[in-house]
Amino acid sequence: MGPFEPLVVLGIDPGSLVTGYGVVRAVGLEVAVIACGAVRPRPGRVAERLVELYERVRGLIAEFAPDEVAVEEPFTRVNARSAFVLGKAQAAAVLAAAHAGLPVFEYTPAAVKQAVTSYGRSDKAQVQEMVRLQLGLAAAPQPPDAADALAVALCHVAGRRTRALVSAHRARGAPGPRATTGR
Amino acid sequence: MGPFEPLVVLGIDPGSLVTGYGVVRAVGLEVAVIACGAVRPRPGRVAERLVELYERVRGLIAEFAPDEVAVEEPFTRVNARSAFVLGKAQAAAVLAAAHAGLPVFEYTPAAVKQAVTSYGRSDKAQVQEMVRLQLGLAAAPQPPDAADALAVALCHVAGRRTRALVSAHRARGAPGPRATTGR
Repeated sequence: MGPFEPLVVLGIDPGSLVTGYGVVRAVGLEVAVIACGAVRPRPGRVAERLVELYERVRGLIAEFAPDEVAVEEPFTRVNARSAFVLGKAQAAAVLAAAHAGLPVFEYTPAAVKQAVTSYGRSDKAQVQEMVRLQLGLAAAPQPPDAADALAVALCHVAGRRTRALVSAHRARGAPGPRATTGR
Repeated sequence: MGPFEPLVVLGIDPGSLVTGYGVVRAVGLEVAVIACGAVRPRPGRVAERLVELYERVRGLIAEFAPDEVAVEEPFTRVNARSAFVLGKAQAAAVLAAAHAGLPVFEYTPAAVKQAVTSYGRSDKAQVQEMVRLQLGLAAAPQPPDAADALAVALCHVAGRRTRALVSAHRARGAPGPRATTGR
């Protein structure tokens, strides 16, 4: 798929209580929001919450038919207990995407911030404002988890575009930097 | 299901590289090993490893038809990065069990140690020796991950037996402690 063919990306920002999602459609340099929101599994046993999150992600995939899924790896700056819970939420999202046959890409928070704000340590408000500007929205998407998920999707689109341009450049026989992987 | 009806339990000890499993069959006070071993997903992308672990657990469930699944929550005494990876492995196991329609119970390492050795801070060697003795084995199960998974299964069997006895006691009209949940 080249840089100028339409690409629908589902971005996911897994959280222990709330998981944000954002669907974007990219064509060349144009990126538009298709949908965004948040999934809040009902309080209950861990297994039930994981199953609900998994089912909801399968539902989003069925509804919006993304080509690829980008998931944030939100393990930084939290304690072990929180990281464990976040890991479970992320795994539910990753498995739902993989079971739907979609390629899954994972990005660290720093990579997302770097891609969206050109700075790896920007704060949440800066990320949300850049998401708003890049998507041409009147207001920042709500809830914040949805904006974070859109940032992950934008990060994936940007990285994909860069890799495609590098590949095209190299295909023309010009020396260039190595294409990086999705990680 | 009362304390003297056969119960097959699949115990799982999720790990970042190796996930142990152990299947036991309990009838009254007798508990016997049916199978144990370890799953080592091939090195690869995280999504592929999670899918493989999920499929392997589904395979164990299909092969041994457990009534219930007991999973260790291995988040203690590790850093956030490790806890995140462990959380993902645990979620793959929990989802595989839940998708197979089985009840899933989670136990902390301290609960497993307490149940198997009557001491919450016993070391790995003590746990493995008590697993060996309780199951009447000539040698400790190998690899150690398999022994740990059998310990989780034994913890679940012991807790279940206690709850059943308490329920029976209360059903006879006697006052007693509250039955606890699987957690």
